[in-house]
Amino acid sequence: MVEHQPLHIAVIDLGSNTARLVVMHAIPGYSYRLQDEIREVVRLRQGMTEAGLGEAAEARGYSTLRLFKRFCESNGVHLVLPTATSAVREAANGKAFVERVARELGIALRVLTGQEEAYYGVLGVLNEVPIREGYVLDIGGGSAQLSEVCDGEFVQGEALTLGALALTERFIRHDPIRPAEFDAVRAEIERQLDTLPWAKPGAGLTLVGIGGTIRNLAAMEAARQAYPLNTLHGFSLSKASVEKSIQIFRELPLEKRQKLSGLHKDRADIILPGAVVVLAVMERLAVEAVTISISGLREGVFLEKFWRHLPYPVIPDVRRFSVLNMARNYGYQKNHANHVRFLALRIFDQLAPLHGYGPRERELLDAAAMLHDLGSIIGYEDHDKHSQTLIEFNGLAGYSPREIAIIALLTRYHRKGFPSLEGYKAVLDKQDKPLLERLAAILRLSEFLERGRNATVDDVTVTWNKDRLRITLIADEYPAVELWQAQRHALDLMAEAFKREIVLDSLAPPGDWSA
Amino acid sequence: MVEHQPLHIAVIDLGSNTARLVVMHAIPGYSYRLQDEIREVVRLRQGMTEAGLGEAAEARGYSTLRLFKRFCESNGVHLVLPTATSAVREAANGKAFVERVARELGIALRVLTGQEEAYYGVLGVLNEVPIREGYVLDIGGGSAQLSEVCDGEFVQGEALTLGALALTERFIRHDPIRPAEFDAVRAEIERQLDTLPWAKPGAGLTLVGIGGTIRNLAAMEAARQAYPLNTLHGFSLSKASVEKSIQIFRELPLEKRQKLSGLHKDRADIILPGAVVVLAVMERLAVEAVTISISGLREGVFLEKFWRHLPYPVIPDVRRFSVLNMARNYGYQKNHANHVRFLALRIFDQLAPLHGYGPRERELLDAAAMLHDLGSIIGYEDHDKHSQTLIEFNGLAGYSPREIAIIALLTRYHRKGFPSLEGYKAVLDKQDKPLLERLAAILRLSEFLERGRNATVDDVTVTWNKDRLRITLIADEYPAVELWQAQRHALDLMAEAFKREIVLDSLAPPGDWSA
Repeated sequence: MVEHQPLHIAVIDLGSNTARLVVMHAIPGYSYRLQDEIREVVRLRQGMTEAGLGEAAEARGYSTLRLFKRFCESNGVHLVLPTATSAVREAANGKAFVERVARELGIALRVLTGQEEAYYGVLGVLNEVPIREGYVLDIGGGSAQLSEVCDGEFVQGEALTLGALALTERFIRHDPIRPAEFDAVRAEIERQLDTLPWAKPGAGLTLVGIGGTIRNLAAMEAARQAYPLNTLHGFSLSKASVEKSIQIFRELPLEKRQKLSGLHKDRADIILPGAVVVLAVMERLAVEAVTISISGLREGVFLEKFWRHLPYPVIPDVRRFSVLNMARNYGYQKNHANHVRFLALRIFDQLAPLHGYGPRERELLDAAAMLHDLGSIIGYEDHDKHSQTLIEFNGLAGYSPREIAIIALLTRYHRKGFPSLEGYKAVLDKQDKPLLERLAAILRLSEFLERGRNATVDDVTVTWNKDRLRITLIADEYPAVELWQAQRHALDLMAEAFKREIVLDSLAPPGDWSA
Repeated sequence: MVEHQPLHIAVIDLGSNTARLVVMHAIPGYSYRLQDEIREVVRLRQGMTEAGLGEAAEARGYSTLRLFKRFCESNGVHLVLPTATSAVREAANGKAFVERVARELGIALRVLTGQEEAYYGVLGVLNEVPIREGYVLDIGGGSAQLSEVCDGEFVQGEALTLGALALTERFIRHDPIRPAEFDAVRAEIERQLDTLPWAKPGAGLTLVGIGGTIRNLAAMEAARQAYPLNTLHGFSLSKASVEKSIQIFRELPLEKRQKLSGLHKDRADIILPGAVVVLAVMERLAVEAVTISISGLREGVFLEKFWRHLPYPVIPDVRRFSVLNMARNYGYQKNHANHVRFLALRIFDQLAPLHGYGPRERELLDAAAMLHDLGSIIGYEDHDKHSQTLIEFNGLAGYSPREIAIIALLTRYHRKGFPSLEGYKAVLDKQDKPLLERLAAILRLSEFLERGRNATVDDVTVTWNKDRLRITLIADEYPAVELWQAQRHALDLMAEAFKREIVLDSLAPPGDWSA
């Protein structure tokens, strides 16, 4: 295999509430993953006046940038992409701050316009959650960006001063919030949303949400429903859930809010107005749910660089790449995975008349075949369970939580065990049981037909009648190991899944054929 | 770092009940791990007569060997170490079988004598569970080996025909077993143990057990007590527990035994006599517990080769190597880990008058410092929790379950959170809480003092009075990142653990000192 030289690319995001440094481990065009992250609460907006950033706030921002720079130097970061958003953008002395940072720290801080901030958020989203038509809502500390996506590309977006921190500081003086304060927040949100005439309901549009406020609302809902995955990627947050959370925030005092499971302690004081923004936008667009994207502004800034050789820095098929990206990050055995996938899809296609599944199910089997052995990076023993854990921890960009759960469970059952949906009722239902069973049976059969890991089995023919299903192997020599291991470990589940007796044979004869 | 060329070394173990092929991924003298395993129930002893191995049994053994060979060829195994034990050794036609295997398969099957079988089992054990004086009991399908260890080396050992399968076939005709049959089994065991005059009680001797029978007895006990680790390495199986299991086996019919949690389904039919052997040996040696070793015969055969350049193929310090072996298998960042360890031990030593801990606790901190970042191989997010998982999954040779749990928890709390023992009461008790707290505080401080991952902090001085604990950094330049991150994330736990206000300063002045 090619030897790849990884680059460490850092993105600095100097926000109104939080300053973040993320370092990505990237092999251009091949794979990327988060390598390190530092989060510092700078509250840059605190004490901001017509004169601009307050002295203390500016000092916090400045020293944080200096420390980020030191960190990048000592960690051997190859490239730093430093950005600042609403606080610096809107501060009267923002330009002076940027010049000082350039002069004294040698950091060319790029102050994003509202449109640019919206654009990068959308770039992050489109590389994780494919949208043809819809909107992206990004709620930060100072501003909130709403953007429109048409035909899979960013068309327009605006930053409004609807950040969670900004609204809190402007309107909320009591804890818990008073009705009059709540109404003022709500009115201000509507007033600002009115300035975006293009934000209106439409047929089949998707709303995707990014930023800590929305992630926390989703995490609270996930906690309520015993959500089985360890990632919120693709989580669907319903309007009812947002309304429920708002109700809770209105009733509970801060120290009780800080104890809500799913809600980050240092966000409990400012989350309410952010939640109201989410609700207002959902109502305005007449959508019943908002889909969570983990990637946003910082990933967008990184990905513009990572995909700069593309005409438009968005992957045309997010699902394909996310599967390969994960496989590559965990050092998969390419030849083995490719051949297991080939055999699995061959069997799937021939069995189509029996199972009746289509391209979507086929793609789940494809992904599971590529990822089935990931867990061996943790250890050979129980590597099937480790693969499941790794997929449920990372999620898979472009796939829904239901699809991620199925792919994870397929890897879990690729060598043994009888598929069960236990613990997954938040994302899977009864109809998924036979699907899981049949796909797992096909994957397991393919895995054992490639047990020698050297592609001995060139191809498979599957034929059947009402009682019997025959699997005939075409191999470049008698596939002794594969016949033996498939017989031992793969046929029960096939028989169960396809309700037939299984017969396994090989066109290539045993070695002692002459005898 | 040096580029290592891994070798794939296979060990074939043709036993009386099971044939096993294990493939080890080995970098000579540097690291090794299990890479693949195939288990086939051959029941070679079935139908064995004075004439020797039965025809069917011989055929099963032969074709399994042929398949193992094919598997090794297709998987690119560099070296195969094929061994056979009691069934082939004792069969009248064993020699003929070995010749046929050599002639037709080109496999030079090495038939181990009883002493050799005992020796290799002990080699496996001594590289996992250090024993100065004691005994090793290995219960297989056909034979059981009892060996004596003096001064950390194998001195003598014998194979007795006390294998679980052998005893079952000879004495048990009813299910559940009848009292008369049970008494006959027990009498035969005592009769054979009498032939080993050297097997007798002694001061401070350790009994270590290997093999499926003993592992299953331990797994049953682990299930009873909600054991928190995912490995049985070092598990202490009490005499009372063995007696309890025997009682259960005597009362339950097979199909109920097969449902016992911890007991492998295809072992339920033969485990009883094996359990009686364990009990008889414990009573004879007057020990109250048997310690579980995961490594046995196969590992011993592999390790003799792996450590062939040593005068005696046993690691003098099993704990040191097991920590490095795991770190190496998971591609740890050597320089960072080494420096975090250096700082942690420096702080630990200076604080000795305050915490009063000694070499054993120091070694736990050492190990945790080396392993704290392992989890980042899974992902940066939650890598602290992943480190814990990896350690509890693999275990650490030479460490007790309590020590493994503490090391795992130290890595879990190396960057955040307040140490808790919840879920660990089977291995930890209240006195471990302050220990965990103090060691975690030291490890966390050291981690953040090396946050830049470039050894900016050369050394640390710790001084204190009754209210205040002062930490002074000696660095080659102002350690801005380290001071900042330690301040943010490491001081609370230090204050809590040592009941003092913490002051952090640096001998190297800030850059703008001249100003």
